[in-house]
Amino acid sequence: MSAASPRPAAFPLAPNATIGILGGGQLGRMSALAAAELGYRCHIYAPQDNEPGMLVSAARTIADYEDAAALAAFAAAVDVVTFEFENVPVRTLEILAPLVPCRPGPKALAVCQDRLQEKAFFGSAGVPVAPWAAVTTEAELRDAIARIGLPAVLKTTRLGYDGRGQAVLREPGDAAAAWARLSPRPLILEAFVPFTQELSAIAARGADGATAVYDAVENRHRHHILDLSFAPARVAPAVADAARAHAARVAAALELVGVLAVEFFLLPDGTLLGNEIAPRPHNSGHWTQDACQSSQFHQHIRAVAGLPLGGAARHSDAVMRNLVGPEGMARLPALAADTGVSLHLYGKASAREGRKMGHANRLFRLESLAFTAEAELLSEL
Amino acid sequence: MSAASPRPAAFPLAPNATIGILGGGQLGRMSALAAAELGYRCHIYAPQDNEPGMLVSAARTIADYEDAAALAAFAAAVDVVTFEFENVPVRTLEILAPLVPCRPGPKALAVCQDRLQEKAFFGSAGVPVAPWAAVTTEAELRDAIARIGLPAVLKTTRLGYDGRGQAVLREPGDAAAAWARLSPRPLILEAFVPFTQELSAIAARGADGATAVYDAVENRHRHHILDLSFAPARVAPAVADAARAHAARVAAALELVGVLAVEFFLLPDGTLLGNEIAPRPHNSGHWTQDACQSSQFHQHIRAVAGLPLGGAARHSDAVMRNLVGPEGMARLPALAADTGVSLHLYGKASAREGRKMGHANRLFRLESLAFTAEAELLSEL
Repeated sequence: MSAASPRPAAFPLAPNATIGILGGGQLGRMSALAAAELGYRCHIYAPQDNEPGMLVSAARTIADYEDAAALAAFAAAVDVVTFEFENVPVRTLEILAPLVPCRPGPKALAVCQDRLQEKAFFGSAGVPVAPWAAVTTEAELRDAIARIGLPAVLKTTRLGYDGRGQAVLREPGDAAAAWARLSPRPLILEAFVPFTQELSAIAARGADGATAVYDAVENRHRHHILDLSFAPARVAPAVADAARAHAARVAAALELVGVLAVEFFLLPDGTLLGNEIAPRPHNSGHWTQDACQSSQFHQHIRAVAGLPLGGAARHSDAVMRNLVGPEGMARLPALAADTGVSLHLYGKASAREGRKMGHANRLFRLESLAFTAEAELLSEL
Repeated sequence: MSAASPRPAAFPLAPNATIGILGGGQLGRMSALAAAELGYRCHIYAPQDNEPGMLVSAARTIADYEDAAALAAFAAAVDVVTFEFENVPVRTLEILAPLVPCRPGPKALAVCQDRLQEKAFFGSAGVPVAPWAAVTTEAELRDAIARIGLPAVLKTTRLGYDGRGQAVLREPGDAAAAWARLSPRPLILEAFVPFTQELSAIAARGADGATAVYDAVENRHRHHILDLSFAPARVAPAVADAARAHAARVAAALELVGVLAVEFFLLPDGTLLGNEIAPRPHNSGHWTQDACQSSQFHQHIRAVAGLPLGGAARHSDAVMRNLVGPEGMARLPALAADTGVSLHLYGKASAREGRKMGHANRLFRLESLAFTAEAELLSEL
């Protein structure tokens, strides 16, 4: 690797500067659309062509994430680099970082790629987590079960998302099958906590350390994939405030420049436990596109470009529904005909089972009665 | 021209269908961004490369507007065609219309390209206009002045915008110089009306004839270029309603599929006079990007794609400020630091004098006091 320092940064980036984005999925696409609104060009780097983000960007590179020559050419062609998902190899950012400013940098990426590091990091940032144990042998799994109890969830430490790489253990007899399925990868056993709700909070942090945090939201999953987000979360103000404070603290501890999401479990006594950190715009923040002055994608681009952060206040209440697979796309005609809904589709060619194809945001007047009538909402959206 | 009918339309367009846009300026760019959110690809057709719209679109054609071969290839590559400005030659749409659905069609374009047709059309649609006369000779100009009186405005009938191709006549002695400057093009003399405000209203009309009209806005110009729009217009409800009704009637009479803006003069007695029709998204509708569920660009794409129209209701009050030339761009640092403002920049390379580089939307709570405090607003934005 070159020992050179990155090019002197000229932040804030001037209009028409080019933002390089590693990854071309829907998060890269929506970041590119926000960047365009802010007057920037985007250059998408991804291993495959015709990714959703490429269809709305001025330039693209199709190359492997560890192709040093392609990365060097990419670094030379852009003014700053960001990434749209946390499974970009840390090595990629290590190759790029000496050549061009990278926001966020390798540190945030490394922490969030490994559930063990993530759990330890939560602790160091003052965010409580459920009991957990590292598991590398079947004997360690048995010890961990004895210590943590059941039910519990066995997960791969790396590359899991949307419920992949996980097994729920309800009784001791489940351990052998789970071990057989998930080993020999490094694993983590996490106590299954009796949560009443899943919440998340999104924080943006600028290069100057300024932070803007959106209202905490309440998430409902279906088949382990986010289905609905309610903004704001219908929880006690102290709980919502705690979620936002945790997210801001995590962003500061990671020295993040960009946007991150922290997912929480809410326990019956009001305790919040940190679950996951995503160092990028997050599905549970899509409601901000229609209900806030600056969306999470605008904030991410503002931070990456060195602009001051925008307004994170919510002007409307919102419910976001994911459109997943053929079933989600079957909702399109009804959603398109509904004047209370904004549609966001990702330009993906085929609606495979479990694939996120788009989402819909329904807006409500701030603190309106309709928003609190959950049953009505669920049937309406 | 081929006698073939356009390809059978498959409306509403399926996700990932391609929308062809004639023109690549900021209106094409913002339409392309809205199309992307709705899951469509865009193909920009324009005579010059590197137009703002091309930087956010999947495909481009660089060719003259009357290049029949290039237009045929364009028609074959897209599912529907629209245009971003009304100075596209009518001939272009006449070449395309037999090959591919064009929305809006040649009729709306032809009416809006010629101030004489436009005035006559306003009359037929039941919208009053200021006294006017066609002028093709200097003698006709003198006759028109005698009939209409002074002050009056002499304008070219075609290709004028942002105050170009106009001369104000205050006294009879001004006629000769104005004639010398503007002839031998066909001209129109329009009475100079003592208006108290300039208003506009934006109407969207779907292929099924459904109409959605945004709140009327109040416009302030500077050097003949739109400077500020206040949404909603601070006028009596009856005036605002009349502006919206006029816009809807004009859209219906033009059999428009898409979005149009109608500009009005408001007289001291509350009368609205129609001034101009723009059969496309309009600068005075940019506030809808941040203050309405569906922006004028989303509505335009929805109409063109055959989707039902979206929600045009305003969730916030708004003030839009244009960023024009170097002076406008000098405001950027302050606007970027203002969390009450959303920025929209167009990706143009150089900020020439008088060039529209971007705009800023400030949001206010619905019917808030701050919005009505105009002086504060003007200094704030």
